[in-house]
Amino acid sequence: MARIGIIGSQGRMGQAIAAAIADAGEDLAGGVDKGGEVASVAALADVLIDFSSPAALEDNLDAAIAAGVPIVVGTTGLEERHHWLIDAAAQTIPVLQTGNTSLGVTLLAHLAREASARLGEDWDIEIVETHHRMKVDAPSGTALLLGEAAAKGREVGLADVAVRGRDGITGKREAGAIGFAALRGGSVAGDHTVHFLADNERLSLSHLAENRGIFAKGAVRAAQWLLGRSPGRYAMPEVLGL
Amino acid sequence: MARIGIIGSQGRMGQAIAAAIADAGEDLAGGVDKGGEVASVAALADVLIDFSSPAALEDNLDAAIAAGVPIVVGTTGLEERHHWLIDAAAQTIPVLQTGNTSLGVTLLAHLAREASARLGEDWDIEIVETHHRMKVDAPSGTALLLGEAAAKGREVGLADVAVRGRDGITGKREAGAIGFAALRGGSVAGDHTVHFLADNERLSLSHLAENRGIFAKGAVRAAQWLLGRSPGRYAMPEVLGL
Amino acid sequence: MARIGIIGSQGRMGQAIAAAIADAGEDLAGGVDKGGEVASVAALADVLIDFSSPAALEDNLDAAIAAGVPIVVGTTGLEERHHWLIDAAAQTIPVLQTGNTSLGVTLLAHLAREASARLGEDWDIEIVETHHRMKVDAPSGTALLLGEAAAKGREVGLADVAVRGRDGITGKREAGAIGFAALRGGSVAGDHTVHFLADNERLSLSHLAENRGIFAKGAVRAAQWLLGRSPGRYAMPEVLGL
Amino acid sequence: MARIGIIGSQGRMGQAIAAAIADAGEDLAGGVDKGGEVASVAALADVLIDFSSPAALEDNLDAAIAAGVPIVVGTTGLEERHHWLIDAAAQTIPVLQTGNTSLGVTLLAHLAREASARLGEDWDIEIVETHHRMKVDAPSGTALLLGEAAAKGREVGLADVAVRGRDGITGKREAGAIGFAALRGGSVAGDHTVHFLADNERLSLSHLAENRGIFAKGAVRAAQWLLGRSPGRYAMPEVLGL
Repeated sequence: MARIGIIGSQGRMGQAIAAAIADAGEDLAGGVDKGGEVASVAALADVLIDFSSPAALEDNLDAAIAAGVPIVVGTTGLEERHHWLIDAAAQTIPVLQTGNTSLGVTLLAHLAREASARLGEDWDIEIVETHHRMKVDAPSGTALLLGEAAAKGREVGLADVAVRGRDGITGKREAGAIGFAALRGGSVAGDHTVHFLADNERLSLSHLAENRGIFAKGAVRAAQWLLGRSPGRYAMPEVLGL
Repeated sequence: MARIGIIGSQGRMGQAIAAAIADAGEDLAGGVDKGGEVASVAALADVLIDFSSPAALEDNLDAAIAAGVPIVVGTTGLEERHHWLIDAAAQTIPVLQTGNTSLGVTLLAHLAREASARLGEDWDIEIVETHHRMKVDAPSGTALLLGEAAAKGREVGLADVAVRGRDGITGKREAGAIGFAALRGGSVAGDHTVHFLADNERLSLSHLAENRGIFAKGAVRAAQWLLGRSPGRYAMPEVLGL
Repeated sequence: MARIGIIGSQGRMGQAIAAAIADAGEDLAGGVDKGGEVASVAALADVLIDFSSPAALEDNLDAAIAAGVPIVVGTTGLEERHHWLIDAAAQTIPVLQTGNTSLGVTLLAHLAREASARLGEDWDIEIVETHHRMKVDAPSGTALLLGEAAAKGREVGLADVAVRGRDGITGKREAGAIGFAALRGGSVAGDHTVHFLADNERLSLSHLAENRGIFAKGAVRAAQWLLGRSPGRYAMPEVLGL
Repeated sequence: MARIGIIGSQGRMGQAIAAAIADAGEDLAGGVDKGGEVASVAALADVLIDFSSPAALEDNLDAAIAAGVPIVVGTTGLEERHHWLIDAAAQTIPVLQTGNTSLGVTLLAHLAREASARLGEDWDIEIVETHHRMKVDAPSGTALLLGEAAAKGREVGLADVAVRGRDGITGKREAGAIGFAALRGGSVAGDHTVHFLADNERLSLSHLAENRGIFAKGAVRAAQWLLGRSPGRYAMPEVLGL
C-alpha cells in the first residue's frame, strides 16, 4: 500500500484525490495547502500529487527532491519557466506532468492520432464537445488537445488547418481542415467526439465524463505508476503503456 | 391508384419522385420540364408535385387551377409574391407548400416544440447538425427550422436568442439561449439533433437521413394526402395529423 | 416557501430529496424513517414525499389524511391493494403516485407515444438502454415504460409485439415489433433511446441521466405542483402539463 | 492507371465494384460471371477482384496464377479447404482475402483491440450494432469481428467471455465479459459501436456505413495496394499499414 501525499488538499480537486486514494486502496500520507509545510507531508509520503498553483511549484519540487519522492504535477496554467523547473527536478526524481489526468481522454487522443495517420485526407476530421453552461471558453482545452493529436497523425500543424465556429456562408469544406464545434448547457462534465467523415462511411471516437472524479482517479493511477521509476520526466500516455 | 404528375421531372428531385411514385404503388401520370406543356400533364393527373423553379410557379398554379387538381409545391427560394400566388390559388384548389418534405424532420420539429414548451428554461437548448463537405452555408435551413420550432415552444423569437458559431472567450452561457453548431464532412445527407440539457440529465431528439430519397417519399405522401381535400393552403405537419 | 416532509428520510433517496428541497429553495419540514412518528412530520408539512416501503404505505396515507396534506408516493414494488389504498386516500387529499419521478423520462415517454402514433408501421421501433454493471435485470423498468408508451401510440399491447434479447438466427424483423436491447457496464446511471427506423431515415429520442439526483429533483417538483390541488389521484405527466 | 478485372461482375457487389473502379480513376479490364471465361478477363487485367462464390474459387485462383496477376478474394462463406487453396496460390501470386473490405471497419477493429489492450478490466466492453429489417442473424459478423479484436487485446478467447442477447434476471455483470446487443430496423446499412464503460467515464468507438458502396471502394483500394507486391497472403489491416 503506497502512502500518497496531496499538495493542494483543500481544493475541489484535492478533496476528490483524497477520495480516489481511498477507492484505490492506497494510504493518504497527508495533505497540505496554502501556507502549509510541504516538507512534512513529503517526509511521510512514497509519492506526491500536486494540484496547487504554478506559484507554489518550485517549493513543491524542492520538497520532493529533498525527500527523494516522485511527484505528479497536475497544476494547470504552467509557463515556460515552470517547465524548466520540472526538467531540472526530473534529473533527480521521477516527475509526471500533465494538463489532463483522465486515462480515457489520454487513450482517446492516442486513438485519434492513430486513425488520422492511417486514414487518407478524404476522411474529414471534425471535433465536437459539450460542456456545462458555466464554461467560459470554446473549444475546450481537451478538444484542442485532441485536435493536436489528429494533426500530428497527418503531420500538419493544427493552427494551419483548424476551422472554428463555422457560421454563415462558409463555402465548401476545405480539404485537410480540422473543424471544431462547441455545445454548452446543463451540468455536462465533458463529452468529446472526434469524427472521421468519408464518402458513405464515418468513424467516430468519443469520450464521455460523468463527473470530475475521473481526473482524481487518473492522478492516483499516475502516482501508482510513478513509484519505483527512474528519475526522469514522464507523461500520461506512458501510464497506459502508449 | 392515384395518377401523379411531376413538374420539374428531369431534375435530381424529379427523378427521385418518379421512383418514389412507383415505390408507393401509385401511377406516374407524366412529367414535364423547362419549356414543356404543364397543362397536358395536369390534364392526365389526379394531383401534381412541383419541384421546378419559382419563375415557373405562376404558370404551374394556373395549370393546376385550370385542370382542377391539387398541387404540392416543394420549390425552394420562394419570395413573398410567390406566397401571394399560392394563397390565391388555394381559394380554388388544395395547395400544400413546404420547404422540407421529410416526414421525419416534420415530426422532429413538432417534438422539439413540444419538449421546449413543457420543459422550463433550466433546460438549455442546443442544436447540432452535420452535412456533407460540399454544403456552403451553416447552420442548415433545417437546423434553423428546428430552432424556430423550439423558440415557438417557449414563445420567444429565434433571432433574439440564437447563438451561432461559438468560439473563443464566450463567457457563461446565457439563460434562454438556443445554440447552433455545424459539422461538415464526407457525404452526410443530413443529421440533426436538438439537445435539451439540464442539471444531471439530458433529452436529445435526433433525425438522420441516409440519403435524399426521403424528400421524394415525403412529397409523394403529401400528394396522396392532398387528394380529395377541400380547396385551401396546407403544410407538412397536417400530413402527419399534427 | 413550502414546507416539505420526507418519509423514508434515511435512505439514499431520502437524503437526495433533502438536498433537492434545499436546491429548490423550499423548506425541509422534517423527516421520518422506520419506526418514527409520521404524524409529527405531517403536522409540520405542507406536502409529504414518501420513498419508504409498501408496508408503510397505509400508515403514511392515514397520516397525510389526518393532517390534510397532499402526498407524493414514489415507493416502488406496489401491489394492487396498495393502489386501492391510494385511490381511497385520493378521495380526501391530492395524491401523486409514480414509479419514475424524472421529468426528462416522463417527457420522453410522452414524445415516444406521440411519434409512434404519428408515424406508420413502416417505422420500426427499437429501444436500447445502458445501465451500470450492478443492475441485475434487463431491460430496465424505464425501457419497458417507454415501450408501453410506444405501444399505446399504435394502439397495440406491448406484450404482443415485444422482441427482447435478439440473438442467433432470428429471421427477418417482424412488422410491428418493438425491440429491446440492454447494455451493462461502468457506473452509467441510465441512458435510454427510442429509435424509429424507416427506409432511409431515422428518428431517435434519447434521455441520459448523469446521476440519481434527477429523481429527487422530480419528486420535489411533483410536490410543489401538488400544493393547492383538489383531492384526487395524479401522475407525473400532469406535472409537465401533458 | 491499373486495369482491374471483376469476377462476379453481375451481382450487386460486382456492379458496385465497377462503379468504384471508375470513381478511383482506374480502368475496368472487364468482368465475368457464372459460366464465363475467367482466363480471358485475367489476361487483360493487372489485378482481379473476386466476389463470386466459394464453388468458383479454385478456378478463379488458377486463372490468376496462369495470368500471373494478384487477386483480392472478398467471397464469403469460405470453408477450411478454400483457405488451403488460397494459401497454395499465395506461393505464386499475391492474394488478399477478407470477409470485410471496409477500411473504416478494418481500422475500428484495430482501435478496439488497442483500447482493449491498454485499458484495465475495470472498463466493461459492450458492442452494439444496428442493421436493416431484412437481416436474419444477430449479432452481425462485423460485431463478432470487433468482439474478437477486443478479446485479443485482453488475450482472452471471445467464446469464453461473450454475453449475447441479455434479457430477464441476468444478475450483476460479470467482470471481463464482452456484451453484444443487436437492433434491427429500417434500411440501416450497418452501425457498430464498441463501448468501454468504466466508473464515471466511457470511451465509445463507432462506425456507420451509409450504404454498401464502402465495401466496393475498400475492395478497389485493396486491389490497388496489391499491385506490385511479392507473392504471399495478405489481409485488410495491411492495406491501412496496420
